[in-house]
Amino acid sequence: MGESAQSASGQAEFDRDIDVRRTDATTYAADLAPGWVVGGGVNGGYLLSVIANAVSQHLPRHPDPIVVSAFYTSASVPGAAQVRIDVKRDSGSLAIVSAELWQGDDLRLTTTATYADLDGLHAKANPLERVTLIEPELPPREECVVTHSAPDEVKSFVPMLERFDMLVPPEQFVWAGGEGSGKGTFSAWFRLKDRDADPISLLQVLDALPPVTYDLGMPGWAPTLELTCHVRHKPAPGWLKVTHTSRNLSGGMFEEDCEVWDSEGRLVGQARQLARVPRA
Amino acid sequence: MGESAQSASGQAEFDRDIDVRRTDATTYAADLAPGWVVGGGVNGGYLLSVIANAVSQHLPRHPDPIVVSAFYTSASVPGAAQVRIDVKRDSGSLAIVSAELWQGDDLRLTTTATYADLDGLHAKANPLERVTLIEPELPPREECVVTHSAPDEVKSFVPMLERFDMLVPPEQFVWAGGEGSGKGTFSAWFRLKDRDADPISLLQVLDALPPVTYDLGMPGWAPTLELTCHVRHKPAPGWLKVTHTSRNLSGGMFEEDCEVWDSEGRLVGQARQLARVPRA
Repeated sequence: MGESAQSASGQAEFDRDIDVRRTDATTYAADLAPGWVVGGGVNGGYLLSVIANAVSQHLPRHPDPIVVSAFYTSASVPGAAQVRIDVKRDSGSLAIVSAELWQGDDLRLTTTATYADLDGLHAKANPLERVTLIEPELPPREECVVTHSAPDEVKSFVPMLERFDMLVPPEQFVWAGGEGSGKGTFSAWFRLKDRDADPISLLQVLDALPPVTYDLGMPGWAPTLELTCHVRHKPAPGWLKVTHTSRNLSGGMFEEDCEVWDSEGRLVGQARQLARVPRA
Repeated sequence: MGESAQSASGQAEFDRDIDVRRTDATTYAADLAPGWVVGGGVNGGYLLSVIANAVSQHLPRHPDPIVVSAFYTSASVPGAAQVRIDVKRDSGSLAIVSAELWQGDDLRLTTTATYADLDGLHAKANPLERVTLIEPELPPREECVVTHSAPDEVKSFVPMLERFDMLVPPEQFVWAGGEGSGKGTFSAWFRLKDRDADPISLLQVLDALPPVTYDLGMPGWAPTLELTCHVRHKPAPGWLKVTHTSRNLSGGMFEEDCEVWDSEGRLVGQARQLARVPRA
């Protein structure tokens, strides 16, 4: 479980699932994997990783997503898709890129993002560090519940649960029937099934947990209006801690802040989304 | 001061400054006002209000920006500009719109946003309210310093300071020579010179305060990589409270969270940006 068990080809499942190939000067073909289905669509974070993989190949000098903003226009389905790339600006150190995911004539997702070489940015950066956010406390993994041990009827609706190990404190396991703490926050241990995280897969991690509204007694789908992801550091190998929090649910919408902490206790990514509250 | 003193034409200065006129099916002409200059460019929040004004005219059924993501590609200058609009999706209740600001052949700013009728969204919304963010405490306005009382050499560099009343606690007045509290947060009273705030002007308010890095002893320009604004409620008339906070400064970048609270104590807007730390 989570032991870097790659396939015989040596390629991890996630890398196969986000694979793209160039089809013209600005278009890449992808094949959205059925394993990333969540209910009526394909996981939005996985789609961001597919897009980022295309942009990263398109701009080899700027391989890492730094900040990605995404608007979802229609639900994706497994199968063929196209990533269309429009480079808005390419300076020496950064590129600003619009990239859209299409399936046939249907726009699924429009993104704008800044890409760079994260190591290069860091090498030239002001060395000051000042992080006042606090790494979430989680029980030891052996005391947690593995989400892919969910009942078959849940997994048939959310096959994505088998793509990773997500370990949650038993009292937080709300999407399997719990009530939620009412605090508007929950956390989980997280690891892709067969490889460690990198800047591209972090985009998936930043949208992997269920909506924090489950913790507020409102189960169900919370449609994302916009999601912004910040990739701040390359994660160290090993388990990640992921936390979701909402502090402003009002007028039928809520913001949800996500943090991803790596095995060395570093805050490697943040995301914020604005989403609609599930129907009562 | 701040007493709704509109011009003889009855039009507030801000409305004149964000005025646009349609020039073809998808393009609007604007005239960026020199009064919004900040150092080497034009205030990014003001530019978002100009763009939103064009989109609002373009989509009369969806007059209000709900969530706006902006990437700045080059510094704007006062004078003629064009807003180019590309509607990605227009459902019954929401529109997703790409809008860019150009000056001649130079792209200044690329935005994607969701627009809607905020009153209509709220009328159909889940009525639950749960806000755990806390309205900032500020001294009474008469004990604060008005930023447009800054020395002339500051105002000639930042003429924007005369567009609004921004009242700051004296010990926070760091951009006039103070040291900063080191806490990574500061707040201000805010009001446009001659009119109350609305969803379009809120975009300006969400990017009006100086970078929070001033409070961390790092004065100077902090280039924004990306800014996302959430407009959650129409502000009540009167003074706003605006607060900036950073909790994650690392690797030469920081996130900055902005909150805007209205005169009735409601959290009406939030923004988050990822910016580069000023050079040491």
